[in-house]
Amino acid sequence: MKKLDLFTPLGLIFGLFVVGMAIYFNAGTDAVLLFMQLASVSIVFGGVAAALLVNFSAQELKKFPTVVKEAFRHREYDLRELNDTFVMLAKKARKEGLLALEAQLDDDVNDPFIRKGVRLAVDGIEPEMIQDILMAEVVSMEERHKRGRRIIERAGDFAPAWGMVGTLVALVILLNDLDDPATLGPTMALAMLTTLYGAILANLVFNPIASKLENKTETEVFVNQIMIEGVIGVQSGQNPHILEEKLRAFIRDERKPEYDVRESGVLAHEV
Amino acid sequence: MKKLDLFTPLGLIFGLFVVGMAIYFNAGTDAVLLFMQLASVSIVFGGVAAALLVNFSAQELKKFPTVVKEAFRHREYDLRELNDTFVMLAKKARKEGLLALEAQLDDDVNDPFIRKGVRLAVDGIEPEMIQDILMAEVVSMEERHKRGRRIIERAGDFAPAWGMVGTLVALVILLNDLDDPATLGPTMALAMLTTLYGAILANLVFNPIASKLENKTETEVFVNQIMIEGVIGVQSGQNPHILEEKLRAFIRDERKPEYDVRESGVLAHEV
Amino acid sequence: MKKLDLFTPLGLIFGLFVVGMAIYFNAGTDAVLLFMQLASVSIVFGGVAAALLVNFSAQELKKFPTVVKEAFRHREYDLRELNDTFVMLAKKARKEGLLALEAQLDDDVNDPFIRKGVRLAVDGIEPEMIQDILMAEVVSMEERHKRGRRIIERAGDFAPAWGMVGTLVALVILLNDLDDPATLGPTMALAMLTTLYGAILANLVFNPIASKLENKTETEVFVNQIMIEGVIGVQSGQNPHILEEKLRAFIRDERKPEYDVRESGVLAHEV
Amino acid sequence: MKKLDLFTPLGLIFGLFVVGMAIYFNAGTDAVLLFMQLASVSIVFGGVAAALLVNFSAQELKKFPTVVKEAFRHREYDLRELNDTFVMLAKKARKEGLLALEAQLDDDVNDPFIRKGVRLAVDGIEPEMIQDILMAEVVSMEERHKRGRRIIERAGDFAPAWGMVGTLVALVILLNDLDDPATLGPTMALAMLTTLYGAILANLVFNPIASKLENKTETEVFVNQIMIEGVIGVQSGQNPHILEEKLRAFIRDERKPEYDVRESGVLAHEV
Amino acid sequence: MKKLDLFTPLGLIFGLFVVGMAIYFNAGTDAVLLFMQLASVSIVFGGVAAALLVNFSAQELKKFPTVVKEAFRHREYDLRELNDTFVMLAKKARKEGLLALEAQLDDDVNDPFIRKGVRLAVDGIEPEMIQDILMAEVVSMEERHKRGRRIIERAGDFAPAWGMVGTLVALVILLNDLDDPATLGPTMALAMLTTLYGAILANLVFNPIASKLENKTETEVFVNQIMIEGVIGVQSGQNPHILEEKLRAFIRDERKPEYDVRESGVLAHEV
Repeated sequence: MKKLDLFTPLGLIFGLFVVGMAIYFNAGTDAVLLFMQLASVSIVFGGVAAALLVNFSAQELKKFPTVVKEAFRHREYDLRELNDTFVMLAKKARKEGLLALEAQLDDDVNDPFIRKGVRLAVDGIEPEMIQDILMAEVVSMEERHKRGRRIIERAGDFAPAWGMVGTLVALVILLNDLDDPATLGPTMALAMLTTLYGAILANLVFNPIASKLENKTETEVFVNQIMIEGVIGVQSGQNPHILEEKLRAFIRDERKPEYDVRESGVLAHEV
Repeated sequence: MKKLDLFTPLGLIFGLFVVGMAIYFNAGTDAVLLFMQLASVSIVFGGVAAALLVNFSAQELKKFPTVVKEAFRHREYDLRELNDTFVMLAKKARKEGLLALEAQLDDDVNDPFIRKGVRLAVDGIEPEMIQDILMAEVVSMEERHKRGRRIIERAGDFAPAWGMVGTLVALVILLNDLDDPATLGPTMALAMLTTLYGAILANLVFNPIASKLENKTETEVFVNQIMIEGVIGVQSGQNPHILEEKLRAFIRDERKPEYDVRESGVLAHEV
Repeated sequence: MKKLDLFTPLGLIFGLFVVGMAIYFNAGTDAVLLFMQLASVSIVFGGVAAALLVNFSAQELKKFPTVVKEAFRHREYDLRELNDTFVMLAKKARKEGLLALEAQLDDDVNDPFIRKGVRLAVDGIEPEMIQDILMAEVVSMEERHKRGRRIIERAGDFAPAWGMVGTLVALVILLNDLDDPATLGPTMALAMLTTLYGAILANLVFNPIASKLENKTETEVFVNQIMIEGVIGVQSGQNPHILEEKLRAFIRDERKPEYDVRESGVLAHEV
Repeated sequence: MKKLDLFTPLGLIFGLFVVGMAIYFNAGTDAVLLFMQLASVSIVFGGVAAALLVNFSAQELKKFPTVVKEAFRHREYDLRELNDTFVMLAKKARKEGLLALEAQLDDDVNDPFIRKGVRLAVDGIEPEMIQDILMAEVVSMEERHKRGRRIIERAGDFAPAWGMVGTLVALVILLNDLDDPATLGPTMALAMLTTLYGAILANLVFNPIASKLENKTETEVFVNQIMIEGVIGVQSGQNPHILEEKLRAFIRDERKPEYDVRESGVLAHEV
Repeated sequence: MKKLDLFTPLGLIFGLFVVGMAIYFNAGTDAVLLFMQLASVSIVFGGVAAALLVNFSAQELKKFPTVVKEAFRHREYDLRELNDTFVMLAKKARKEGLLALEAQLDDDVNDPFIRKGVRLAVDGIEPEMIQDILMAEVVSMEERHKRGRRIIERAGDFAPAWGMVGTLVALVILLNDLDDPATLGPTMALAMLTTLYGAILANLVFNPIASKLENKTETEVFVNQIMIEGVIGVQSGQNPHILEEKLRAFIRDERKPEYDVRESGVLAHEV
């Protein structure tokens, strides 16, 4: 159900290509090397890393790679299919009783979250308790994602700041020793490089990725809330027609077809 | 019911005209060409595009054209007529019963949202459930618009940042090679161009458009909430006089005539 | 009940005087003319206007003059008198019944909002419905003012941005043609003028006016909420002494006389 | 109960001393005079004053001196004593009845807010109404303080902006007439002075004072909420032991002794 | 249960090392001394200290060392063990009755917060009151931590501002006396040093530490809320299986194993 989210690597590569072209048009191929200064790179990356070390605990930082990986993953939700699943479950439950749902649950339902909800319903737990348990899981998932995302968000805050620190360090040294005017220009060029790195890191990498992760979590929370509505509806023996009407309200806007993106019935992060 | 929102293209053209005049008064017609640099344009547009690619999923970016188109559309709401509609429905429902509403519903009511609500009422669904279903649709519409608008909002964030990246790239190259003082000025002029593009893109195009879309969504949510109040009032057999009083409260401020803009009974995005 | 709010024009004139004095002390009377450049003025005003055109709809922009006018108006609320009014109404209602209130309502009560509330009470509408109707009016007033105020707020955002756009345009032209060092200074002076205009527009005109309008709306909402409490209290036949105690709680802080500003019993926008 | 809050004047004096030392170390005693320029001072103060005149009404600005005075005042709350008071009142009320509290109320309780609450309880008003009346007073106090504080907060926003306006005015004049390079430096020094004044005013005076006032209001609201809990507990005849347990929960954290600051049982603005 | 949080000192040292390396690569070992200017250090530290003196009361500032110390402490929560504890308590309570919990409470439960809750339950206090008392403690802890953290947050706001004040002071002096061009560079280098100090203090020390403290408080609040759920569940004689299901919902996401960090059952500040 998870696939590679092509747009993340595509965007990153395209962004670097844009910067590369800008360099090339301004000064030809040779200048590209001028922009690759290990020392400048290390002060920005090092400074951001140091600030993150102070900012987060060991366990939080351990999540960094998985969080980054998540930005390259893509999860699709078929809301129409979801709707159908619940209508089917509601019909079955009204005809054969709630207990009948358990028999073919693994065949009928792919999503473990729905399965868990239905199982709780079959076990005879009251609707309020089911809602409590399922919402606890959603809230906890949301909280956990927020925590992971925050590392990226803070990196996006620290990157331009440390880019400026690098430039200031170089400027202080430069100004302190103005003896040789010939080196003034190139040294100042190097000084500005860290500011450039900080700006690119923040506005191509960290901020867009943090924002993408937030979108993904919002979509997941939204879908989970539909699922909870559905499970409660099935349990309470709600009329399948009304349940369908209610669930469809979440996914359709009949008055604004031009705003509707559900051509194929497959939505991804925009519901 | 939707018309061209003239003010959006007008504002954009007027903004470019203002910039053009500023160039003309400073340096004559020839200088206008100086401000059209394909390389500078591409770094700002390219950088923003790259950041958006990282920031959003394929399905979200597909919405970009429709969202932009929406900024050029204009939807008018006649709140007085809306009020009349509900008073008429309430009277009919009290005299002839709720079921009588269905017969001429398509003639009586233009808006599909009201029609849906009335149909649910006629079907005998309880008021709480109707409110739930209609609010689910409103919330989902609001959420969907917020998602679409966010692409423009993020573009407004990225544009000045990438304008600065372009300037920094050019400055680094410039400073690195100061041999020919004669080209210093023109090169720096080119360097500043990307910052200018970023500022204009953000403050003439992206930020105002995102803000206009937000206003439109707010108006739509507000009108929908009045509609829900109306449908519930009709269903519960509320006294048409009280219902009118309540709905009118939303649209009128009798104590502040100078603040009231309803001269013609036609409001647009400001209710 | 509405008077000219002298402080708005006073502040504007004093602000321009301060800037004028700063110019005078720096460079004598002649320099004042230097600061009046039609071209520079037009780029800032034009740019802000263009951005507002994109940002708002025709109907919203039509409100601009009334919103600005509102910043020069002043509405005084006498909370002590308000309190007395409700105590009087409560006594009358307990002695002679709710219906007795209607006879002399226009004489007893000046405020149309209170009159409307009392009339609804006399009509026998239940308290919850009265509260709903009156709150709908308050919320709608608040929303309408927020909408109007937003034009000014956005102008305050756009003014410094377009000031910078103007400076960037002039700088690009200036840097492109550095032939005559003699004109370098004066041209740069002109370039910086738009930034100055933008800063003054934002920090003397738009931001303070938007903030003043927000204060006024907050006061009005606050007073209206006291009125709703009062009307409900009168209708429910509450003990006039308790009602008075409750309403006085809103307007008095007996423990902090030094913080209390009600010397004259006349409050204005600070309750 | 109110004492001089020594830290406010101490901080202000120390801040000016720090700036003075910075000047002295850079350029000796004579330079201190260079930093005292009446013209530069007046543009910053004048501009901020003008913006505040536009931003606030006469009645609000009248509060300015009392609000500033409040930043130099210090109010101590003894939460342990507060706790004891309520336990004593609860015991008395259970033994001798609520009416017995009135006899020695002025001796038993110092705080007028508690006295008011107890008196309402003795008068037989229901708990919900007492809570409503007392909360109305707290909310109104909070609102009133927020209003007063906002003047300082806005001054903190306007100060750096007007510092920049002053610098821009001077720069425009300077650039317009570059004839005498000898005066270029000193004139630019003067130009930067207003930016310096704006930065110091915002970051030593206005922002810290506004923030201190916010802390004070938060403490007062917190203490008042404990008092309301206490009064309701006494009235409802709650077990003194449970009441004590509940009130102590607000003021103690037995699991984190290192975070607890109640060595002396006297808290000040940090509860 | 509290250990040294190694990452805070590690991050600080690594950050200084990064800056040191940047200096070394730019200008060799000697230049490191250039960056250690007592006068520049004192204006930034002194200015921040002065602003904090104005901003906070004596009692609040006394907390400064303990708050800083807290950033170097590390508290681990074993959520799995917590879950087991409550399941055990719930089983015992159902089998032997609530009173049986008291006998071995100190052996069974380490955490004083849980012990307090269980003791209140054993004392027969109603669940709502227990929840009130425990939540009061959590809210008060959260408030107290926020208060302490705010000192660091404000320091992070003031540091760059006072860095700029230091630079402005030096620039004014420098510009006022441009006689000796030879000292121009080094003096300007010194002027920029305070800006550099302010940036490093904010982005390596104050902002990351304030953010880490916020994370820690969030974790503690989250764990306490689970504990309250558990205590209430035990008291109300909830089925241990359902209680376990509910508590596990907080700590697990079975559908996203790659996001789950509970390899060892030991979580730290990320739950």
